[in-house]
Amino acid sequence: VILDHILSMLTPKARPLAGHHALVTSGPTHEPIDPVRYIANRSSGRQGHAIAQALAALGARVTLIAGPVTIADPPGVTVLHVETAAEMLAAVRAALPADIAVLAAAVADWRVAEPATGKIKKQPGAEMPALTFVTNPDILATISEPGPLRPRLVVGFAAETDDVIAHATAKRLRKGCDWLVANDVSPASGVMGGTENEIHLISAAGIEDWPRLPKDAVAARLAARIAQELTGETP
Amino acid sequence: VILDHILSMLTPKARPLAGHHALVTSGPTHEPIDPVRYIANRSSGRQGHAIAQALAALGARVTLIAGPVTIADPPGVTVLHVETAAEMLAAVRAALPADIAVLAAAVADWRVAEPATGKIKKQPGAEMPALTFVTNPDILATISEPGPLRPRLVVGFAAETDDVIAHATAKRLRKGCDWLVANDVSPASGVMGGTENEIHLISAAGIEDWPRLPKDAVAARLAARIAQELTGETP
Repeated sequence: VILDHILSMLTPKARPLAGHHALVTSGPTHEPIDPVRYIANRSSGRQGHAIAQALAALGARVTLIAGPVTIADPPGVTVLHVETAAEMLAAVRAALPADIAVLAAAVADWRVAEPATGKIKKQPGAEMPALTFVTNPDILATISEPGPLRPRLVVGFAAETDDVIAHATAKRLRKGCDWLVANDVSPASGVMGGTENEIHLISAAGIEDWPRLPKDAVAARLAARIAQELTGETP
Repeated sequence: VILDHILSMLTPKARPLAGHHALVTSGPTHEPIDPVRYIANRSSGRQGHAIAQALAALGARVTLIAGPVTIADPPGVTVLHVETAAEMLAAVRAALPADIAVLAAAVADWRVAEPATGKIKKQPGAEMPALTFVTNPDILATISEPGPLRPRLVVGFAAETDDVIAHATAKRLRKGCDWLVANDVSPASGVMGGTENEIHLISAAGIEDWPRLPKDAVAARLAARIAQELTGETP
């Protein structure tokens, strides 16, 4: 911390987030149906992992809580691997306090109420037993709740397929987060699973429309905006 | 083909499957719920991909039809990538005729009857809409049906969590395949997602219990047994 402080005085613009703890979630969650089947969200983790790395590059101490992804852990970041939404929430809570929370994971909204302990067998002529779902904990809303452990800046994500701005603006207010990063993941956008992202940054101040950029450029720009917000300086 | 024939005469034991076409399926299938959610089976594709490579090493021309996996295409094999069970069946049919079919993919038994075209939204206080499932086409049973396009040797797989031998023996008869490779994927076995496999080879002749082996050793042994069955020679 002392070294961070000296470095930050020497190079204030290069490491504006030194001394700050940033919590980032990334990737999908997998919710089990039985020992061999699960429900998943499409998410590569590329955007969240890039944000974790970009925040670390600006000097933040970063804890990345990652769902099941196939990409490598970013360097210079503490990575915790989880599978379900419940595990992700527990890991996020355990990682607090943090100054910044960027919740980029595509968390499953629902899980199967009672996963089968044995493989569900296909019976001749019978359909799959109906699945009963229960709502998963809402990590973004939970972390956004006022209280001593609320991070100073909570950033949520919204992957939408239609009425992107309207849905995302409503989501920001409903969740209680400070910023919401909205992106269009409709099949027509070609964003899903790709290497680029076209986002809208929604805050109390209004909406910023960013151009389509590679995911690491989106991450660098978001990290710079976060540093500006927390330190008042433009890196 | 002529070169294959010359090579097979020169080194009959090294390339016993030269001149044979082998069809292999591998990996899971993903069945969409909506544009961002899907149901998946846990399958890395490691065992199926290793079998494709082992059959190619014995001289077979191999077509590998792979569901969504993160491992690399094996060298020396024609690879077709599919996502759903319906796509996998269509690709298998298009790849016939074949002398050998090894259907190692963990095909989803069911798919969602009508995937939503837009992302299903979480409504405050409302649970996820019930999902109605329909049975997927049974690729193993379909390919095992008698007819001019039936491969000479059809090998199915059974991932079981309990009563492994009993379930797999019944499955071989129900599907109409020649051999069934059964393995225990119960959480206690530690096989799922791992690099080893402990299998039982079930045929009309009886049951062979193989020791626990790395997946590429299982693949080499299975390819050698296939060559022996088709050529009458032990490679």
